[in-house]
Amino acid sequence: MAEAASIRPISADRVSEWAHEADVVVAGFGVAGAAAAIGAAQAGAEVLVLERTGGWGGAASMSGGFIYMGGGTPLQKACGFEDTVDNMKAFMKAALGPGVDDTKIDAYCEGSVDHYHWLVDECGVPFKESFWGEPGWEPPSDEGLMYSGGENSAPFHAIIPPAPRGHLPQMRDKHASSEKGGGYMLMKPLTDKAAELGVRAEYGMRVQALIVDADGRVVGLQARRYGKDIAVRARKGVVLATGSFAYNDAMVEAYAPRLIGRPAASIEEHDGRAIRMAQALGADLAHMDATEVAFFCDPQLFIRGILVNGRGQRYINEDTYPGRVGQATLIENQNQAYLIIDETAYEEGLSRPSSSALMRAEPTWVCETVEELEAEIGLPEGALQSTVEVYNRHAERGEDPLLGKKPEWVKPIGSPIAAFDLRGRTGGFTLGGLLTSVDSEVLHVSGDPIPGLFAAGRCTSGICAGGYASGASLGDGSFFGRRAGAKAAEA
Amino acid sequence: MAEAASIRPISADRVSEWAHEADVVVAGFGVAGAAAAIGAAQAGAEVLVLERTGGWGGAASMSGGFIYMGGGTPLQKACGFEDTVDNMKAFMKAALGPGVDDTKIDAYCEGSVDHYHWLVDECGVPFKESFWGEPGWEPPSDEGLMYSGGENSAPFHAIIPPAPRGHLPQMRDKHASSEKGGGYMLMKPLTDKAAELGVRAEYGMRVQALIVDADGRVVGLQARRYGKDIAVRARKGVVLATGSFAYNDAMVEAYAPRLIGRPAASIEEHDGRAIRMAQALGADLAHMDATEVAFFCDPQLFIRGILVNGRGQRYINEDTYPGRVGQATLIENQNQAYLIIDETAYEEGLSRPSSSALMRAEPTWVCETVEELEAEIGLPEGALQSTVEVYNRHAERGEDPLLGKKPEWVKPIGSPIAAFDLRGRTGGFTLGGLLTSVDSEVLHVSGDPIPGLFAAGRCTSGICAGGYASGASLGDGSFFGRRAGAKAAEA
Repeated sequence: MAEAASIRPISADRVSEWAHEADVVVAGFGVAGAAAAIGAAQAGAEVLVLERTGGWGGAASMSGGFIYMGGGTPLQKACGFEDTVDNMKAFMKAALGPGVDDTKIDAYCEGSVDHYHWLVDECGVPFKESFWGEPGWEPPSDEGLMYSGGENSAPFHAIIPPAPRGHLPQMRDKHASSEKGGGYMLMKPLTDKAAELGVRAEYGMRVQALIVDADGRVVGLQARRYGKDIAVRARKGVVLATGSFAYNDAMVEAYAPRLIGRPAASIEEHDGRAIRMAQALGADLAHMDATEVAFFCDPQLFIRGILVNGRGQRYINEDTYPGRVGQATLIENQNQAYLIIDETAYEEGLSRPSSSALMRAEPTWVCETVEELEAEIGLPEGALQSTVEVYNRHAERGEDPLLGKKPEWVKPIGSPIAAFDLRGRTGGFTLGGLLTSVDSEVLHVSGDPIPGLFAAGRCTSGICAGGYASGASLGDGSFFGRRAGAKAAEA
Repeated sequence: MAEAASIRPISADRVSEWAHEADVVVAGFGVAGAAAAIGAAQAGAEVLVLERTGGWGGAASMSGGFIYMGGGTPLQKACGFEDTVDNMKAFMKAALGPGVDDTKIDAYCEGSVDHYHWLVDECGVPFKESFWGEPGWEPPSDEGLMYSGGENSAPFHAIIPPAPRGHLPQMRDKHASSEKGGGYMLMKPLTDKAAELGVRAEYGMRVQALIVDADGRVVGLQARRYGKDIAVRARKGVVLATGSFAYNDAMVEAYAPRLIGRPAASIEEHDGRAIRMAQALGADLAHMDATEVAFFCDPQLFIRGILVNGRGQRYINEDTYPGRVGQATLIENQNQAYLIIDETAYEEGLSRPSSSALMRAEPTWVCETVEELEAEIGLPEGALQSTVEVYNRHAERGEDPLLGKKPEWVKPIGSPIAAFDLRGRTGGFTLGGLLTSVDSEVLHVSGDPIPGLFAAGRCTSGICAGGYASGASLGDGSFFGRRAGAKAAEA
């Protein structure tokens, strides 16, 4: 077995042979890498992608495929929604913080309609003109548009005019064994487009270290293939796009320990290597503690009941984006949650279409009264009873003054009543990473860009500082990936 | 005005003149720097301290002076408390995480009694053999020992035998204009000891960058004095001990955004420069989001009432360490808190001695009934009434099954009843920083120590990963500072 490769930068004058060469060399062929490759090729560069696995796709191709876009995209209009760049900015700054990069969000929102056209008109990503308006993580079928960040619920909808911004590539053969999910239907056109533009890809190439010239400029990458180290020269720039650090245990422990033991919606290749390689050059980081958090329960069920924490208290409006539920549960409520729901509401939830049917477990406890249920769960006397009593008192009038759940979802909880034990039912991936400029330059701790080095996707800190919306990762990965490629090509 | 100095490492062969030279050069003369200087001098090194301000002390000399020690110190024994190294370890691992560095905590606990002897017998730090057992941030007078981490309250006291570990140097002239606080009474003996050992100190020296030889070894520091850059050579090693990044707005925004606008118990010199200088060499970081959080209310008051969040719900046992209250309020409850207390309990609290009398504001609202108070605060009908009703129901029996407040502090809340508006009443300092080994070597992202570079105190990630106990900062600053000096001296 070969010795572990060093992560330290390698001096270019020590490279005896360049095995490959291109203007722009991209590490990773997920969404950010594909977008970077296209962006660079469209700017006239010769592009080479180094991918660690045997094929393109990365985590993106296995994902649902949401891309967060707005400000009045053709799909939003076709589905009857108005949106503005300003409303999109206001929502993202309110929902994705604290500590968001305003400059990045401004550029992202101002460029969003253009990005849509790029995806659709230039790359051929298909979106079906159909809106899915029911609760869920994803649409149950191939609908193209959905709320994916809590825009239409408290605390945002009363302050910022809401619009759905989760754009989903149209899936093929949904529910069939040949199913191609939204993520695949994003990545297939992107990688086809890259190939059409002459982008080359080399597979089985694990990037290990950056190669740097005497002036400190990044001029290539060292990669390992079949246990052998080879040097790849980048005449104009290197783009890092190898994903998050969710599968690097030491990094998760040091930077995002709440996620220890619960990686999700992520792939084992997400080992943080690119972050380390750039840190070794003095690259800065941001928001390393931020995490997307999935909550493993069907929203069609929990929106019809109430979620309570380990003390039997409500803590979030159940009609918000389920990822906000996940974050509130893990970060603010010790990863403790119970769903309290009556039989009627449960049956109604079960009867609705859902992409999350696998998250529909049987109730843990079923009782005739809240008092019995409270005792079964082991909550202190009165803890759950008072929660349900206060909820029901306002629900009689269709109101939820405590958390602002919309009237359509507020109904008194009756009997029989069940509880689902949802303690520890979260998982997620990391959102922090390299600090990059709005042009996807990797920034040194001095504040200056590191010459020749660019990055995008989940090895960077993108548009999310603390909060999350579905589509933010494929969104900023593709948006800032494209910029990374273009900027590298002009170097 | 001089041009901003670069933070990038400087090559030793470009240094034309060394203005100063020593075996070990320490940056910063707060607690970690003083301990490092003594540690290095006791190991036989010639030591020079570079301090940015006009005198020794740093944030430490302005602090209360708590040092977290245990495992059976003479002061613990003199005050009648038993403690073991294992119990100390268990508590610290449970309370200071998630993500604590087990190796560091093990070393810290195993060496704690020795550290006490070093402080007292070798350095002359005075501790009065007197225990303060009432609620508070600090003792009201010059008592030497106090619970400072919530060891004797839920959720810890039932699982881990508690012992007080907050050791406070005896203050002088408490409450007089000539008062010397606990922090001063720690720093004065330490800096006297350093001087006695021949440690030299240069003041008005702002460290700017590390000086590195051709092999990547740190061999000195560049500092700015009166606008002029000067080079200081370290024959054996450099110790960074310049404090936190609480006053670096860009770093707080990128790494610990919940603290934006609320630095506390920190000094303006805490600009993160040392962290940046080491990052520029590829140093790794840890727990950059972790923060100590103060809660600006007198514990003598809030322990006698209940704390509720912005939804009128209780969220923490009010008899725990007030820093845990601060963290729970800021991180888990949107920085929203109200203290609910009846007149009898309020008067009783006011009558007790406290070091936090300045935190005793007038009640924001006073009413005859909880119903009225709930309406005055603007909470939804029933939200506060149900909280008080459930609390009182159990309090009649002296119990708090919801959060486990100890029976001695649990009394039904009567009338008249008041509420204190404590929203936004938190502040704090950062706990994250350079990743160091148990010997205080600064670790490169490769995992290897950076030759010649050591660090301690709040520019490093120490014994706290997420939680906090008063005394942890002066504790790990002095403990790992001493190790940093000793290790640098042997290089």
